[in-house]
Parts: sequence; C-alpha cells; structure tokens
Amino acid sequence: MIKVAILGFGNVARHLYAAFSGTGEVEIVQIYNRSLGTIPLEFKTDFTSQLSEIKESDVYIIAIPDDDIKGFSEKLPFHNRLVVHTSGSVDIQILSEKNRKGVFYPLQTFSKDRDIDFINIPICVEASNTSDLKTLQKIAGCISEKTVEIISEDRRKLHLAAVFINNFTNHLYHISEDIVSENHLDFDLLKPLIIETANKIKSLSPSESQTGPAKRKDKKTIEKHLDLLNNDWYKDIYKIITKSIQQAHGKKL
Amino acid sequence: MIKVAILGFGNVARHLYAAFSGTGEVEIVQIYNRSLGTIPLEFKTDFTSQLSEIKESDVYIIAIPDDDIKGFSEKLPFHNRLVVHTSGSVDIQILSEKNRKGVFYPLQTFSKDRDIDFINIPICVEASNTSDLKTLQKIAGCISEKTVEIISEDRRKLHLAAVFINNFTNHLYHISEDIVSENHLDFDLLKPLIIETANKIKSLSPSESQTGPAKRKDKKTIEKHLDLLNNDWYKDIYKIITKSIQQAHGKKL
Repeated sequence: MIKVAILGFGNVARHLYAAFSGTGEVEIVQIYNRSLGTIPLEFKTDFTSQLSEIKESDVYIIAIPDDDIKGFSEKLPFHNRLVVHTSGSVDIQILSEKNRKGVFYPLQTFSKDRDIDFINIPICVEASNTSDLKTLQKIAGCISEKTVEIISEDRRKLHLAAVFINNFTNHLYHISEDIVSENHLDFDLLKPLIIETANKIKSLSPSESQTGPAKRKDKKTIEKHLDLLNNDWYKDIYKIITKSIQQAHGKKL
Repeated sequence: MIKVAILGFGNVARHLYAAFSGTGEVEIVQIYNRSLGTIPLEFKTDFTSQLSEIKESDVYIIAIPDDDIKGFSEKLPFHNRLVVHTSGSVDIQILSEKNRKGVFYPLQTFSKDRDIDFINIPICVEASNTSDLKTLQKIAGCISEKTVEIISEDRRKLHLAAVFINNFTNHLYHISEDIVSENHLDFDLLKPLIIETANKIKSLSPSESQTGPAKRKDKKTIEKHLDLLNNDWYKDIYKIITKSIQQAHGKKL
C-alpha cells in the first residue's frame, strides 16, 4: 500500500479522497486541514489541524488555493519527503526546497455536489526524480486510466486551454441564460444543445463542427443579433468572437 | 396519418426525415430538392427536383438556407396550404402570403455524420392559426417530448442564445485545440473537461458553476495567461470574457 496524506479539504481534496478510498493500493493515512470545522462528523480517516501532527506518508498531496501553496509547503515540519501540489498553473519549483517536489494535476472541474468518475480524467504528473515520478504514476493509475507526464511549462498551457474550455465556456452559458431569462424563456430549452455541442468533439474537430452566422459571414443575422443584445459586455464578446471565427475560417471560405 | 413533404435535403432535412420515418403517425410523402444529385440511390421515398411535381401534403417543411426561404416560398405553385420553415432566426412573416404560414424549429445542432435522438430536442412551433398550430404540435409530438409554442420575436432570442452556446462555445474549443496543438500536446486530454463542463448545467446554474482566475480576480494568473497567448484575437477574447465574468460576479465578491 502506498501511504498518502491529503493536505487541504476543498473540492479537489474531497474528490481525490473519495477516489483513492475506492482503491486497494492507496491508503489515505490522514487529512490535514487548517480548520476541523469542514470535516464531516462521521468521517473515519484520521484528520488533524496541527502541522506538527502530520503523519509519515509516501506522498503528501497539497490541495489548497494556488496562492497559498508556496507558503504552506515551507511550513511543513519535515524534510526530504515527496510533496506534490494539484494546481494546473503553479510551477513545480514553487514548492519548498526542503522536500522532494512533484505535481499531481487532475485535468477536470470539481464541484462540491457532483460526483466525478476519475477513470477518464487525465492526471498530469511531474516529479524531480524518476523514482518519485513512478510513485505518482502508480497512485494516479489506481484511480485513472489516463496518466501523463507533463512538465510545468506544458501544464501551464493545458491550464490556459482549460480556462477557455471550462471557465469561458461556462460564462457563455451564463450569457445565454441571461438572454433567455430576461425574455421569460426557459433555459432548459437550451440544455440539449449545450450537451450535443460538447459531445460533438468526440467525433468531429471543433474546426469541422463550426457553423453559424459568423462562419458564413451572414451580416444580416449578425446585425440583428447585435441589436437584440442590451448588455455592452455581451455585445463586445459577440463582436470579437465573430471576428475571430471569421479569421480562423477565412482561408476556407 | 399526417402527410408531410420535406423541401430541401440538407442536414436539418435529412435529420427530420430520419426522425419522422420512425413514427407511425407521419407519412413523408415526398422530398423536394433542387438537385437530385444529393439523394442516395437506395432511397425509397418519392423525390423530385421539379416544383411543379410537388405532391399534395398536410404540411410542407422548408429546410433550406435562411436567405433562400423567402424567394423559395414565393415560387411554390400552390395556395392556401400549410408551409413552414425550420429556421431559428427568420420571422414567420417572411413566408409568402399565398399559403398558410408556420415555423417548425428544432433547437439543436445537426451534423451530417452524427445521429441525433429527437426525443429530447425542443421543437419550437408557431403558426398563424390555431388549427395549423395543432397540426404542428401533433407532428412535433411524434418525434419529441418537448414541443413549445414560441413566437418569432422570442425564437430570435433563443437563436441568439443558441449562437453563444453552440457557435461561440465551439470556437472556444477551437482556440483550446490551437493552444495545445501548437505545443504538441494532445487535445484528447481536454475532452473529459469539455463534457463535464456541459454536463454540470444539468445540476448547477452557470452562475453557480463559475470558477477560475477571472472570477477570483487572480491577476497573477491572468497576466501569465495573456503572456502565453500569441494570437491577438485570442488575447482579446481572453481579456473581454475575463472582464465580463468579473462584471457578472462583481456583486458577489
């Protein structure tokens, strides 16, 4: 059994905890959180809010906000152990020098109330030596079928792409909800379209899937749409994405 | 049996044809297309490329490009029959006065090579009299569980929202693919994130789902991301959506 301690108890930490708990090869020896208030009463795993009480483990997974990782890793009261963070945008080098460094980044969006099946989630691992890399690959392999070694520089780019795909796409959903609810229409009408738009990428590249007034340079519809938008931010987003689509597909027209 | 003729044979027409063919209550009496070249040889339904040969039907469904609907409806060589179009953005009034007007708009994205299950696709119907509306609701009800009466003004807004959700979201996928492939990373790594981002809307509103550097006003990450983007269009899209997210979530911070 590989012993793992999870440091932090936010969304990522909880999902990792749930995923590892179902495997026979990883033992979660402890959870650390700076406050015990968030730990459910019925919790069976040992937990602590004292840095000095953190138990010996093979891997320490820091799952806390990006800005806190550096300072937190410096406060850990032990040396030469494998300490990893779970962030997409933070360099491995930010971790304190006193321990062996690594990254364990599950490329997914986690919410409090949604169960996630880890089996298809790519886990991007990185470590400063081969033996630690193998350990991370091993524990990743217990919960996911897609473990990839990704260096910090590439992970940053993946994270940037993930921001477009998750954060920005979600904001487009938000805009759509605004447009329909302002007009007392039901957002549920648009949900099958959201799902199919996403599912299409399984069989078609985004470039092949592109349709709509921007791609076909349908000025009349574009003008009508801009007239319908009251919010200036939404108007700007409409204009700039329309231009970018025309730019990207211009050669093919 | 309600007799339906489909006028046009593009993506929407083909998908409607396939959907209606599976029902016992609608009979596709004929397909019209201005060229016969696109009709598969093994096709069993009667088809014609001559306007003068169009058969008598209860409903004529025009499924051709938006800009061609007006002129085409004027050329139909019959009077006082129910003629509908399938467009999200075209007003019902654009149809020629010589026939009874209607709209039959399936709110979904259709591709040539992807089968679609109509059962969950909202079908937005509109007609200029109650009896025609009932006919459209009846044929819609044969293929979908979600038939809604939507007037042209509201349909235009649904279509605008659909452009954000489908066309614009797909362009964000395109940008992400560009970012990763430029760096020789595998776009497949991002696909589970695309699917989960979409699936989340089943249980959480887009506003509740919003996360990321823009929402938490993480200037450091935003700066790093802008540095990583080489394409000026993508940079502008990043900036404007980031500002719009901050605008939308500003009150709650």
